Amino acid sequence: MTETIPGTPRLVTTAGELRSAGAELLHRAAENPRRGAARRPSLGLVPTMGALHAGHAALAAAARTTNDVVVVTIFVNPLQFGEQADLDRYPRTLEADLELLGAQGVDLVFAPAADEVYPDGPPQVRLQAGALGEKLEGAFRPGHFDGMLTVVAKLLNLGAPDAAADYRAYFGRKDAQQLALVKRMVRDLNFPVDIIGVPTVRDADGLALSSRNRFLSADERVAALVLQRALGMLRERAERNEPLDPDSVLAMIASEPAVSLEYLEVVDPLSLEPLAFACANTPFTGTALALVAARVGPVRLIDNMELNGG
Amino acid sequence: MTETIPGTPRLVTTAGELRSAGAELLHRAAENPRRGAARRPSLGLVPTMGALHAGHAALAAAARTTNDVVVVTIFVNPLQFGEQADLDRYPRTLEADLELLGAQGVDLVFAPAADEVYPDGPPQVRLQAGALGEKLEGAFRPGHFDGMLTVVAKLLNLGAPDAAADYRAYFGRKDAQQLALVKRMVRDLNFPVDIIGVPTVRDADGLALSSRNRFLSADERVAALVLQRALGMLRERAERNEPLDPDSVLAMIASEPAVSLEYLEVVDPLSLEPLAFACANTPFTGTALALVAARVGPVRLIDNMELNGG
Repeated sequence: MTETIPGTPRLVTTAGELRSAGAELLHRAAENPRRGAARRPSLGLVPTMGALHAGHAALAAAARTTNDVVVVTIFVNPLQFGEQADLDRYPRTLEADLELLGAQGVDLVFAPAADEVYPDGPPQVRLQAGALGEKLEGAFRPGHFDGMLTVVAKLLNLGAPDAAADYRAYFGRKDAQQLALVKRMVRDLNFPVDIIGVPTVRDADGLALSSRNRFLSADERVAALVLQRALGMLRERAERNEPLDPDSVLAMIASEPAVSLEYLEVVDPLSLEPLAFACANTPFTGTALALVAARVGPVRLIDNMELNGG
Repeated sequence: MTETIPGTPRLVTTAGELRSAGAELLHRAAENPRRGAARRPSLGLVPTMGALHAGHAALAAAARTTNDVVVVTIFVNPLQFGEQADLDRYPRTLEADLELLGAQGVDLVFAPAADEVYPDGPPQVRLQAGALGEKLEGAFRPGHFDGMLTVVAKLLNLGAPDAAADYRAYFGRKDAQQLALVKRMVRDLNFPVDIIGVPTVRDADGLALSSRNRFLSADERVAALVLQRALGMLRERAERNEPLDPDSVLAMIASEPAVSLEYLEVVDPLSLEPLAFACANTPFTGTALALVAARVGPVRLIDNMELNGG
């Protein structure tokens, strides 16, 4: 393992600096291999939109455990925001972000301005998410996943090691559809990178961490916990091989007036296709993913839970 | 310069073989640098659909002049064919192709089967060419450029050097819109590769080489030359700073009954936006690109000419 000395990571803001700093760090790693390390160095990339919390720290920690060089990108991507208001109020907290990343032993932070990422304005050639990007979150946020994949493709290219090195990129499992789409893109378009999904981090009360949670009032936050209870109920039923009985779960969510449900779906973990049996009165077996999205006060929350029926 | 010893290039058919063979060749180039070469080795990629002719040889030769390692890909991409019939009759001549590439000193040929390139069937996540892909050729071949960019993105990723190396990819200027779109994609999505446009190769009679020319009868071939005369007329007028007078050029093409014109446009070389002045009675100055497409017998032909008004 690399020694992780807490400190401040190096901050770069241009694509050229990112490339040369990454190459330098990999070069150094190749010259001073970790004890017992394979001879091939590795680079882990963690794309974020900043406003970092313990969930992002877990992404950085996962990257730190496995790679010689860890690069975190911080970029609030205008392409993936439907509403200008949501983009404008998205929190920017660079100084605190750098401190959090320093504590995780991150080597390099790439925090470009929008005109460094999009020097010609909005890109003409883009990624198209296809059917997997049109359902669930995609139905509520048209164009979101095309914009997300476009910037992820750019960041994967900008961060790619310019050396013989293993390349991994880290995404949170909280954004399950994003993770499924990024994996699909990398597979469909042969990007030379491994995509690693990192488990969701939750507060003590069970709420999945999100940069948007800070906009919840204390009451709204308590109300939001019904989503976590709903997912937990599905998980328990799955573990006991009972029917999931989603109607009772929907009724529980509906009893919380501050929570406006957008969807609750039990889907195949890879294709995100709805699983018909989840609605029927059938004992649960196998593996599935329960996905939920709701508006709570001024905020749109998503969460998900793996269901394991053994 | 690398010595180019005519022979047969190494043929690989899987992504894994391409990656390891490419890495091995680059490694060898780094250990035995060319005399006077920069210390950083380089790889040139030439994506083709096979049925190679002297135009492709020029692409391979251009790559050979500048790079330590030259890789040619041969793949008839089903995604970019609108009509199944055109895909089915597209010529496949692998043995002759390998001989032609050997004579150019190509190191490595990647000729995968369709299920190596698309192991999961048609890809879900794709490239979207945008407005630049909808006009001109795109108007006659819906979806063509999305399919072309999708496979070019894949091939750029599959062929990318897994080492510190310069990376270049070579495309013919005959397919002017394809070249403009590939350049646009690389710029918009930050692929770490330089795109090089190689001048069109013509037969003695002036017809631009194309794998589809073999389907022209002798009479159709003579008729097709009117397109070349039309472009030549525009070029001469541009060089003399005369008005282009496109009506007279259109009349000349119309006088050839075997040729069914699809478009003749004078456009900006980068954006491919039509240049209004080209239609007016204005003396020509500056630089433009004249693009032509026509059906001649069973074949659709395209050609173009740079117009230089000094």
